[in-house]
Amino acid sequence: MKIAISGKGGVGKTLLASLLSRTFAESGYSVLAIDADPDANLAATLGFPHPEKIIPISEMKDLIAERTGARPGRTEVYFKLNPKVDDLPEKYRVAHNGIKLMVMGRTKRGGSGCYCSENVLLKALINHLLLARNEVIIMDMEAGIEHLGRATASAVDKLIVVVEPSRRSIETAYTINKLAQDIGLQNIAVVGNKVRSQSDNEFLISSLPGFEFLGFIPYDQAIIEADLANLSLLDASPQVTNEAKNIYHKLVPVTQK
Amino acid sequence: MKIAISGKGGVGKTLLASLLSRTFAESGYSVLAIDADPDANLAATLGFPHPEKIIPISEMKDLIAERTGARPGRTEVYFKLNPKVDDLPEKYRVAHNGIKLMVMGRTKRGGSGCYCSENVLLKALINHLLLARNEVIIMDMEAGIEHLGRATASAVDKLIVVVEPSRRSIETAYTINKLAQDIGLQNIAVVGNKVRSQSDNEFLISSLPGFEFLGFIPYDQAIIEADLANLSLLDASPQVTNEAKNIYHKLVPVTQK
Repeated sequence: MKIAISGKGGVGKTLLASLLSRTFAESGYSVLAIDADPDANLAATLGFPHPEKIIPISEMKDLIAERTGARPGRTEVYFKLNPKVDDLPEKYRVAHNGIKLMVMGRTKRGGSGCYCSENVLLKALINHLLLARNEVIIMDMEAGIEHLGRATASAVDKLIVVVEPSRRSIETAYTINKLAQDIGLQNIAVVGNKVRSQSDNEFLISSLPGFEFLGFIPYDQAIIEADLANLSLLDASPQVTNEAKNIYHKLVPVTQK
Repeated sequence: MKIAISGKGGVGKTLLASLLSRTFAESGYSVLAIDADPDANLAATLGFPHPEKIIPISEMKDLIAERTGARPGRTEVYFKLNPKVDDLPEKYRVAHNGIKLMVMGRTKRGGSGCYCSENVLLKALINHLLLARNEVIIMDMEAGIEHLGRATASAVDKLIVVVEPSRRSIETAYTINKLAQDIGLQNIAVVGNKVRSQSDNEFLISSLPGFEFLGFIPYDQAIIEADLANLSLLDASPQVTNEAKNIYHKLVPVTQK
């Protein structure tokens, strides 16, 4: 089963990815979590020790040069569009509490150089992971879902768009929906987060007519306080954890592995 | 005066950019606001009519082809690294309530094609705007500040990193600080947002020792409610507006134009 999680920055993608990863692992699945959002820190939220020591794939210059034939940062070069990546998942993942993790790192933008070779490697790797592996894969992505290719779209069982009660997060959900349609990805669902009241709930439903809602995670100040106290977010709020379990149960019967 | 605003997704960069743009405009400055965050909507927050009709520079394929010599999306092409952009600011900006606006749009990632030509044009344009224009420029940027070049760094009077009381936003602030050091940008300051209490305030200060704080914007539920009711955020909370004015007064005496 392959799940991709996207949404506007700050809505809670990483928390949901972490909670789902743990719930799948506790239910006996082999889980591979993929951190594909450079502005997130899935390793820290999952409780990996020393997350700052994990080297993202995008920073492995020798690996990128070896596989694509191009040094990152050089402009006007030719590089392999389909680099070999099938041996990388075993080499470059870390594990903790039964969850395996790969960190993709920053996808660089142009300007001081052409970083297409790095981006091509990251995309090839993500597509390989989605297509080839038997595990449950839970991917924390930024709002741009360009890493997903047309060929990969059919492998994604569910693209979960996280929204919060704010107009900007709804706009981003529509943008993601359009990008998903462009690559032929149909299985989109929404999770509401930071829901404070019934009227927040109704705002989300009425703003996204026709979208499937997998759940509504309540706002809980305990999450913020746990974060500030540097405690695990995963156990900070029983009601949040519980709603993540409900979302898991909605995901599993649909596409059982 | 040139101000760039960055920070983790969701911390409130766009609101601060909008409030500062309006405060500068009301004080008689000629303001150019630049939306350089594809996950934001500065036009909507500034109250521009029909923000969805503004075509971002990155989607002007003919313009990109004309200026860089490359069609967006094609791989393995040669393109001009220094496209001519000096005539673009007058052509491709919109104005409302005394504020001029340019929308940069998405900087595409590699994979389905090489978008370096688009990115090169966006970067050239931002650097041109920063170096050449006399206006107050307020730029809403994502956490990746790669658009700023080494030559441009000295033109930025202040890089404001917005943080909220959360560990992830502090981590992003350190990442931005490192990226800024890499391009020689020294004038960094921090604004705390969504501050609920004195202990939130102390958390931010103690998490960012050695950083200059320009202000602390209080959390106000009125902002969320105005957003849900589709009302202007800029007038929703007198205490938020007031703190933005305090920040303006801290910015202006430093580098008077």
